[in-house]
Parts: sequence; C-alpha cells; structure tokens
Amino acid sequence: MIHSIIFDTDPGVDDAQAIAIALRHPEIDLLGMTTTYGNVDVETATHNALLLAELAGREIPVAQGAAAPLIKPRHAPPAHIHGANGLGNITLPTVSGRAESRCAAQFIVDTVNERPGEVTLVAVGPLGNLAAALQLDPTLVDKVKGVVVMGGSIREGGNVTPVAEANMFNDPDAAARVLTAGWPLTLVGLDVTHRCVLTPAHMARIEGGQGELGRVLAGSYAFYRDFYQSALGIDGCCPHDSCALAWLLRPELFTTSRGHLSVVTEGDAEGQTLFAPEGRGFIEDRWSRTPLVDVCLGVEGQTVSDWIAEVLA
Amino acid sequence: MIHSIIFDTDPGVDDAQAIAIALRHPEIDLLGMTTTYGNVDVETATHNALLLAELAGREIPVAQGAAAPLIKPRHAPPAHIHGANGLGNITLPTVSGRAESRCAAQFIVDTVNERPGEVTLVAVGPLGNLAAALQLDPTLVDKVKGVVVMGGSIREGGNVTPVAEANMFNDPDAAARVLTAGWPLTLVGLDVTHRCVLTPAHMARIEGGQGELGRVLAGSYAFYRDFYQSALGIDGCCPHDSCALAWLLRPELFTTSRGHLSVVTEGDAEGQTLFAPEGRGFIEDRWSRTPLVDVCLGVEGQTVSDWIAEVLA
Repeated sequence: MIHSIIFDTDPGVDDAQAIAIALRHPEIDLLGMTTTYGNVDVETATHNALLLAELAGREIPVAQGAAAPLIKPRHAPPAHIHGANGLGNITLPTVSGRAESRCAAQFIVDTVNERPGEVTLVAVGPLGNLAAALQLDPTLVDKVKGVVVMGGSIREGGNVTPVAEANMFNDPDAAARVLTAGWPLTLVGLDVTHRCVLTPAHMARIEGGQGELGRVLAGSYAFYRDFYQSALGIDGCCPHDSCALAWLLRPELFTTSRGHLSVVTEGDAEGQTLFAPEGRGFIEDRWSRTPLVDVCLGVEGQTVSDWIAEVLA
Repeated sequence: MIHSIIFDTDPGVDDAQAIAIALRHPEIDLLGMTTTYGNVDVETATHNALLLAELAGREIPVAQGAAAPLIKPRHAPPAHIHGANGLGNITLPTVSGRAESRCAAQFIVDTVNERPGEVTLVAVGPLGNLAAALQLDPTLVDKVKGVVVMGGSIREGGNVTPVAEANMFNDPDAAARVLTAGWPLTLVGLDVTHRCVLTPAHMARIEGGQGELGRVLAGSYAFYRDFYQSALGIDGCCPHDSCALAWLLRPELFTTSRGHLSVVTEGDAEGQTLFAPEGRGFIEDRWSRTPLVDVCLGVEGQTVSDWIAEVLA
C-alpha cells in the first residue's frame, strides 16, 4: 500500500531522519512538506526541508507555516539540542529551491481537497499548521485519510516539563484543537519514542548509505547525541519523528489504546495530554467527551530502531 | 524501632485494614487517629475509627476533623466502593467510645509539640487536617519526625480522573499545602499501591486471625472486592492505605525517588501530582521550586501484600 502524506515538520535533527525516510521509502508518496517553528525558527525549518529534499534528489513542494503559537508567546528554540541551524551546527550545502507561495495551512487544505480520502497528515512539530488548516476548512476532518501526530505523553512523563512533551507544550492551544477535532487520529508520543534508540552503529549504516544526505544526518546526529548523553545518559538518540512513520508503515510493531484525549492549556500541567481509555469511568465525564482517537502505549523499540536504519542504509 | 504515629484517616475499607495494622503491629505506637471526610462523611469516619479501636480492645484517642475541603465544594462520598457506612454496608456492632473534644488539627498540633522530633504523621485521606494543623502551627514542619502520605500518582495515571488520585482530587488545595510544606515527607501513591493486591486467600487468613474485627475486615472487603472486580477486572483489592504503613515499617521493599512535587489545583488535570526528579532540568524552573520530598515509584508488591496478611493473621 502506498501512503500519500503531507509531512508537517520543524527540522530538527530527528525530523531530518524522518524526512529522509519519507523521501526514500517506496511505500510513501510524499506530496509535500509543511513547516513550522519549534525545534528552530520557521525560516530555518523551511530551509532545512528544502535542503533535505534536494540532497535526496527530489522535487517536493515545501510550504511555510506558523512562526509562532496560536495564542501564547513563543518559547525560544532549543539550540542546545538541535543546534542553531537545526542540524547540529554543521556546515550545510547551499539550497537552490524555494518554498511555495501558499502558506502551509492553504497547502494542506488544497492538497486534501484535491484527493479526498487519500491523504494522511503526519505532524511531528507543534500543531499550529493543522489547527490553521482546520480554521480555513473544518470539513478536512471528513476528508483526510488519517492524521498521525508525534507528540504527547500518557504514562511516560514529559521531556520539557514533568508531564508535557515539547510539541504539545510549544502550542497547547493548537494541540487541543487538533487532537479533539474528530478526525481519524493516532498519537505517537513519548510512551513509545522513549523505547526506541538510534545507536551510533545504526547511524554508521545510515551515513554509509545516503551519500551527502548521510553526511548531514550523521553530522547532526553527533550533536544531538551529545545532548542525550549529558541530559539522559543514553548513548544514542530517540528517533521521535521517525516513529510516526514507523507507526504508519509497520503498525504491527506498536500497541495502541483507544480513548479520549484532552490537552491542558493552562497552569503547571500546561501541554499535558490527558488520556481517558474508552469505557473507563471517572468521577465526572468531562474527560470522556472528546472524540475517540488511538494512542500508542507500547512498541517493539529495538525492531523499530533497526527498521529505521534498514530503510536508510 | 518503635514508630509513634498519628493516623489521619477516612475509613473506608482499605483504611480499616491499615488501622488494624496500626492497632496490632508491635513496632507502632498509635498516639491517636484523626478523621476526615473522603471515603465517607467525617461523622462516619469518626464512628468507624472508634469502632475499630474498640474491636481491637484498644483505647486510642480519636479526634474529628475536616467535613469538607479547604476551598472547593465537596464531592459525594463513593458509596459504591466503600459502602454507605464505609465498611461495605455490613451490620456493625455498637460503639461506646466518643471522639476527643479537640478537633483533629489541634490534636495534631498538641501531640507533636508534646513530643518534638518523635511523631510521624501518616495521612491516608484528603489532606485537610494536616493543612489545618499547619495553619494553627507552621512550626510543625520542623517538629514532626516525618510525614507519610498515601495519595497521588506520578506515572500510573489516576483512579478518579485520568491523572488524579482520589485523596488529592478530593482536596487539591490542601494537598498543595501539605506536599510543599517543607517537612520530611514521603508520597506513597498509585505507582506502588496498584502493584499490591490483597487476595481472597490473604483475607481468609486475616479473618481467621482477628475475631470480631476479622469479621468486619472480611465483610467490608467482600463489598470492596466486588468493585475491583467490576471496575478493574482484579480478583482482590489494592490495599492502598496499608501501603503507607508498609513503607514506614518495611522501606526496603520500596524504591523511592527524590524530587519536587506540586499539585494542580485547577483545570482538567486538577488533583494531579507533578513530580520533577531532583537535578532534572526542564524548560523552566517552576516545577523545581518546591521543597524536596521522596516519592515511591516501585515496590515488591507480592511481598507487601503477603506482609499485610502476615501482620493481621
């Protein structure tokens, strides 16, 4: 089966790995990339998306989107994790391509409406572009084939606060809109991405298999790996964003649970994803009023990590 | 070592089991019980505390406290879990004793001040009495030997909302005051109590070993067990409150982590306990400003469950 996808992204080191998969995997038809602030400024995100497509020898539309959250002030990009240029501060080749004139939200609306029932949105950054697309055309909820969101955490705890994952925390209002929109959605969050580790051995295989693109992936990985080593004591990196594509292409490696999501938009738990399993009673029903979605709670982490290296080697 | 404790409680089926341990264990000197609404009305809680002491042949001071939360409206007691009388709706013997004239908070203040550095507060219900005691005498934080709180959940999810445990949810403002007061505190929450199961075989041993008290424990257990069976599919019950005493007496069976707790008091995550491990960096420091406490994250659940039965058999 071929999956026609729009990849919404803020590259970012682990985004770059996922983009390389989307550009290369024979079962993915990458209709376009839409960019957002998050790991980097949106202009940097757009630059990097164009660069990665060019390094893979592909002409893929890139449409720039959100430079800031829907409502709240923006947090500074985490340059200590992804580098100021989003790719580990390595020297990058020149980019010749340019972004679409359409903004990200319009690109999503147009593309989905051209191919109703066929397009899967894979979003791996803050969710402002998907929220903006729903603002332009609320009927998208019935026209997409599916939505896969890398973000959130149900049991694992957060990575930017004790309970919040970065993409959700960076725009909780957009996340609340997108996760409760009522479209067929799967959340791929820290509960599974923290079970996957892309090791130096994996990256050596990827570097050898991707030419100049491999050099960029390996160079940015080295920077990202330093962060994981110092902050979390892991030798390797969690390939967060690639997990969203792994779920799309290898769902049998994941266990999911169906239920109701809500997103906390204020207070100390801001950005937390709350999950009420379908049919589970709580003291009130306020946690069970949102549409049903699927959340990934388990994964064969080693197999997914090996799969990523295999696809890119 | 003898632990001199005040047991703050809202009995409640699992409270009754814990009270029976506190009344019987040779290493516990039970200075008094203080009562609160929660599993039942406070009057019922007081009645049951007096009853359980009498059934054990002990004269223990019982001081009645909070009938409602500090600030918010009260939730209805969960009669479907503990029974309307807090002990599974079984017929109960008559009580002859009476509560102290002092309220719970004053009893705590007086008792701790009489024996500075010696008293451990073990609280297994909503935390209003401890908050009220701190209001009367903030210097308690330096005078208690320790505080053990059954409540909260770090990774396990909640039992009354997707993220909140019942004691915290029943009075999040009191919980915020007590958990951040700066006294030597250990949280014994769902992360460990959900790993322990008191089975029908355990209860048969307890019933045989406790005379009339055993009949009350077993009868109330049967009602509570029905709830666990229908709601959670477990044959047996989680002995939440006894785990607080197990931690006090058998700490080697638990793994704890040190860090900063805060309690969400508003919104969809109301009643959630947020835990920031010591030294772990987050995007801001607001989660790491509260005093350091210990939280239980792991337990030898089978051994603790067997220990409870052994103490009471």
